Amino acid sequence: MPFLSSLLAPAQTKPELDLMPWPASVQTSTGELRLDQSFTVGVRGNDDPRVKRAALRLLDRLSRQTGVPMRPGLADAAHATLVVTAEHGSERVQAVGEDESYALEVTPAGATITAPNALGVMHGMETFLQLVRAGASGFSAPAVVIHDAPRFPWRGLLIDSARHFIPPEVIRRNLDGMAAVKLNVFHWHLSDYQAFRIESRKSPKLQEMGSGGLYYTQDQVRDIIVYARERGIRVVPEFDMPGHSTSWFVGYPELASGAGPYHLQTNFGVFDDAMDPTRESTYRFLDKFLEEMTRLFPDPYFHIGGDEVTGKDWDRNPAIQEFMKARGIKTDAELQAYFTTRVQKILKKYRKTMVGWDEVMQGDIPPEVVIQSWRGPRGLAAAARAGHRVVLSNGFYIDLMQPASQHYLIEPLSGDAATLTPEQQKLVLGGEATMWSELVTPENIDSRIWPRTAAIAERLWSPQSVTDVDSMYRRLAAISEDLDWAGLTHNSYYRPALERIAGPRYAPPLAALASALEPPKEYARLDIDQVSTATAYNRLVDVLHPESDAAREFAQAVERIVAKKAAPDDEGRARALLAGWSGQEQALAPAFRNSPSFLLKELAPISQQVAALARTGLEALDYVDKGAAPPPSWTQQALALADAADKPQASTMVMIAAPVRLLVQAAGGAHAATP
Amino acid sequence: MPFLSSLLAPAQTKPELDLMPWPASVQTSTGELRLDQSFTVGVRGNDDPRVKRAALRLLDRLSRQTGVPMRPGLADAAHATLVVTAEHGSERVQAVGEDESYALEVTPAGATITAPNALGVMHGMETFLQLVRAGASGFSAPAVVIHDAPRFPWRGLLIDSARHFIPPEVIRRNLDGMAAVKLNVFHWHLSDYQAFRIESRKSPKLQEMGSGGLYYTQDQVRDIIVYARERGIRVVPEFDMPGHSTSWFVGYPELASGAGPYHLQTNFGVFDDAMDPTRESTYRFLDKFLEEMTRLFPDPYFHIGGDEVTGKDWDRNPAIQEFMKARGIKTDAELQAYFTTRVQKILKKYRKTMVGWDEVMQGDIPPEVVIQSWRGPRGLAAAARAGHRVVLSNGFYIDLMQPASQHYLIEPLSGDAATLTPEQQKLVLGGEATMWSELVTPENIDSRIWPRTAAIAERLWSPQSVTDVDSMYRRLAAISEDLDWAGLTHNSYYRPALERIAGPRYAPPLAALASALEPPKEYARLDIDQVSTATAYNRLVDVLHPESDAAREFAQAVERIVAKKAAPDDEGRARALLAGWSGQEQALAPAFRNSPSFLLKELAPISQQVAALARTGLEALDYVDKGAAPPPSWTQQALALADAADKPQASTMVMIAAPVRLLVQAAGGAHAATP
Repeated sequence: MPFLSSLLAPAQTKPELDLMPWPASVQTSTGELRLDQSFTVGVRGNDDPRVKRAALRLLDRLSRQTGVPMRPGLADAAHATLVVTAEHGSERVQAVGEDESYALEVTPAGATITAPNALGVMHGMETFLQLVRAGASGFSAPAVVIHDAPRFPWRGLLIDSARHFIPPEVIRRNLDGMAAVKLNVFHWHLSDYQAFRIESRKSPKLQEMGSGGLYYTQDQVRDIIVYARERGIRVVPEFDMPGHSTSWFVGYPELASGAGPYHLQTNFGVFDDAMDPTRESTYRFLDKFLEEMTRLFPDPYFHIGGDEVTGKDWDRNPAIQEFMKARGIKTDAELQAYFTTRVQKILKKYRKTMVGWDEVMQGDIPPEVVIQSWRGPRGLAAAARAGHRVVLSNGFYIDLMQPASQHYLIEPLSGDAATLTPEQQKLVLGGEATMWSELVTPENIDSRIWPRTAAIAERLWSPQSVTDVDSMYRRLAAISEDLDWAGLTHNSYYRPALERIAGPRYAPPLAALASALEPPKEYARLDIDQVSTATAYNRLVDVLHPESDAAREFAQAVERIVAKKAAPDDEGRARALLAGWSGQEQALAPAFRNSPSFLLKELAPISQQVAALARTGLEALDYVDKGAAPPPSWTQQALALADAADKPQASTMVMIAAPVRLLVQAAGGAHAATP
Repeated sequence: MPFLSSLLAPAQTKPELDLMPWPASVQTSTGELRLDQSFTVGVRGNDDPRVKRAALRLLDRLSRQTGVPMRPGLADAAHATLVVTAEHGSERVQAVGEDESYALEVTPAGATITAPNALGVMHGMETFLQLVRAGASGFSAPAVVIHDAPRFPWRGLLIDSARHFIPPEVIRRNLDGMAAVKLNVFHWHLSDYQAFRIESRKSPKLQEMGSGGLYYTQDQVRDIIVYARERGIRVVPEFDMPGHSTSWFVGYPELASGAGPYHLQTNFGVFDDAMDPTRESTYRFLDKFLEEMTRLFPDPYFHIGGDEVTGKDWDRNPAIQEFMKARGIKTDAELQAYFTTRVQKILKKYRKTMVGWDEVMQGDIPPEVVIQSWRGPRGLAAAARAGHRVVLSNGFYIDLMQPASQHYLIEPLSGDAATLTPEQQKLVLGGEATMWSELVTPENIDSRIWPRTAAIAERLWSPQSVTDVDSMYRRLAAISEDLDWAGLTHNSYYRPALERIAGPRYAPPLAALASALEPPKEYARLDIDQVSTATAYNRLVDVLHPESDAAREFAQAVERIVAKKAAPDDEGRARALLAGWSGQEQALAPAFRNSPSFLLKELAPISQQVAALARTGLEALDYVDKGAAPPPSWTQQALALADAADKPQASTMVMIAAPVRLLVQAAGGAHAATP
């Protein structure tokens, strides 16, 4: 079990540095560099203007992070505290596999970041920012020598702007977050059943009729591409086809396989709407559209989706059936392969390399096509064996609300991929976290991406051997705070959103309740609630952090307590947490009595349930401490309480039910197993 | 006592609306307007483009405030939920006294805002946003008819960009805050001893040598003026002269009365540096400078400071003494009057009305000069009697960290001003909150301005009879939350700043400790710490809210308990607060033991002190409840503890010492008075 590795690791002699992703090589020595108002940055080497602008951003971030006012502007490198050097220029368009390495040295007298090009310099700056912490007499960075380079060249975050429009400023701050953890690909999912989100000047009905008024202008797109490049991030656009394409058909129904009329889908799921791959007019339209978009996006890679084509609209269309018969195309999969091949030729004409989801690997698709694997590790290995370069997303679906540890332990070169030859393994370019946006809004999207995506970033950057989950969580807490200073709102959205539900007076006890809860996992929420693009995502379930630190901490303490391996403060901490979960009930009672808020009302039962579980947990700890078996009736009731809490309440999951059950079973000894 | 008025007020039969400033006339009726995804806004009447843009902002704010996605864009007024009408256009440059009235009607079927011009429409929109709250079945606005207009035409906020540079985006979000509470004058203090913050193209050494690199370009200034106008806010610049002017002299020492050399002042206080009012070259320089600045700022009012001239540099300069003798100028005050008169003539040439602080009212200054009163109510009345229009700032110095209630109860037409004739009273244009920035940074400035400034805004807008402090605080809590949605950071800065001190794990108990503390009042901090423009304002004292809601609530509950007029939940609430203040000690203990942070270290004694006070408070409540007198030794120790806490610790004030003392005295009965 990977969880155990941390328990077996030798005790650390000095406090771990709060770095994430963990660098390839870290050598600490004694002493530290003080960071105060006299701190300056100087630039040497190649004159890539990105380095200077990054240095100015570093000063600004350092000022914000420490609260120490830094003098504006750059200093003479001969006298600067931190000297950064890019030895060479970089590619005009950032290339996959372009050197991202850097060396960072900190001594009590100063610091240097040296890298082959601006990309490494910028990564080194992010590491430097993570080194700066409050010490005994001021802010400082420890003396250290770091040599660092990424394990994988493609480390991405997909943001789905289709299900919910994500405004440009939200994209921008997430690019800052990506840069902070050394991600280098922004995969922009721009069209789907529910909306088409980008201005086409050649085919303007795409955005005019397909966006509900919410789309990116080409100027905004260009700004974002520049913003990303300034941070060492490539922008790969995705236009999903031939499925996931309803939004195209509202303005251009002639592209569709069905008879229409078409409206934007407002619900979520998989629909049969698909482009007609048999009409030449479809390819003429796509040629014109792709010419326009391939000019707008400078990256050499271009994503055409290709996932989840049901084929049903093809099966229902006599002309399409006729076409298949005439050409000897026997299955929908073959027809999709025909479509993919045609589109790939258009992209090739515009000098782009096609990227597609698993499903594009059909027929005689050329090996240059990059496969993004979402369905499972087997597909990834198969694609690499067939000579395709591959990007892993299976296991990195951050919309599924799973804990950071689960994503963290996804090893791209495990399972089938472990049996690949070294040459085939090199085809595994990396991976991408995917922020599908059915349940996210500009308000809560940061909290769904961060800090968990930092753990995925570490998986894709750091050496394969870096897998200690406890260490990851310790560092993740610090990095989450760093991301606050970088401008992310994954923490700051929380209090106002709780106040919207309960008012300022009752937000603190509501936060105590919330810390026992998490949103439902995987796709459960879509079944629990009839959500749609028009839903107001303002309920507690929409505010909850995907992962409760308090609940995880409690569960871990309980596991150690029942295994009789408790650390000295485990029981004290568990009791303190239980006291908070018990106390919220009384604190919230006046709010449930007096507040008119419909958002609060649904939470009264779960407040009582959590409090009852907490009291039960405290009683169970008392029994455990006394070594006295509880009456069987108590155990029976306690287990029934835990069982009841296994079911979603107010669309949320009570995360403390399982550890309380463990405590009850431990208290009840052998009895508990057979109530 | 004004505090008592609320206790004596008749019990309210329906919950108070969370409006601030309270409108001139509010008539509620039954029913409510539901606010959901179908909500739309339509515009009628005059085609002032500000109305449409304000309507789009309203949609955006409403979406953020409720979490309900609103369709983008405006609707046909014939079918819109909210119809806004500006009957006429408005002045090209917003005028003092321009009509700001509006009528707002909400019915279950829809809402209308009607106003003579865009200013009133925008005020009505802010009122509408404050009406929208979470009800039993969704967000809604209650049925209501509001007729509203301001009591005073000049309702301002001064921001001092000199002591600390306040970046344009921080200015902009504070303009949003001002608009939210119907303030209409942004008084921009742009130069002082410590810096000169604006680009002069005619005299560029002003910013090049006087700003430390931190100044506003003229383009940024123009953007801010437009941003303000879009929100119904005038921008009045202030260039303080002849004193408070060291920053001018770094680049242009020939302006000064002293021999120099001049450097930017880095400390705070009153310095002798002053312009030389006797040289014609001074006026030639000012003429050129004021020509440039009066073109940049369209407002007809122009502030030249004029405060705190010590005259010592004049006394020490033989040429100046010579000049005074030759002209028969006998005092420094007369010499300043000579200067003011000369500058006023320059401003008049550029068609500006001079505004100055109290001290400009000397000599034969013409009555058209507007006097801003900072020294006291007597000056205000005297100026009005002399025919000057006056703006009140005395009592509205929000940098002094006083409670909202104290500012709220400042009545501009009280004291000497109450004896003015009705005509003279009309010369009182209004008032301004002043955010002097010695101790504020871009990080904490919002928290020093908001929400307290909303109470001042109510004083300046609402009828004189609106003075209920309890009602003000109840509404202020809701308005503080609204200001979050408007983009202010007065709440959101708090957690990251606490985490900087204690780390994410210990920020919650640090917040519990912080809720017992406030920053020192008035100018005490400047004496306690040797602060300067280079100080890092990142200690707990820099993070603390100016006013602790918890400490105020506790003090009020204790006052009622010892007066034997306790409300049913007063003691429970007091005990809960005391439990939190007691519990933080144990919760923070591991942090004090293990954290290396110098920012945390200084807080260990105060954590113990607050916990000891809290335990004493709980014991005192026990004695009170039992009706049993404590042993005299207990009382003596308890009072000594409270006395010790009266002194600042870690530069902060322990706000629970006084109410705990009250409880101890109540518990000890007659004994307590004579320990």
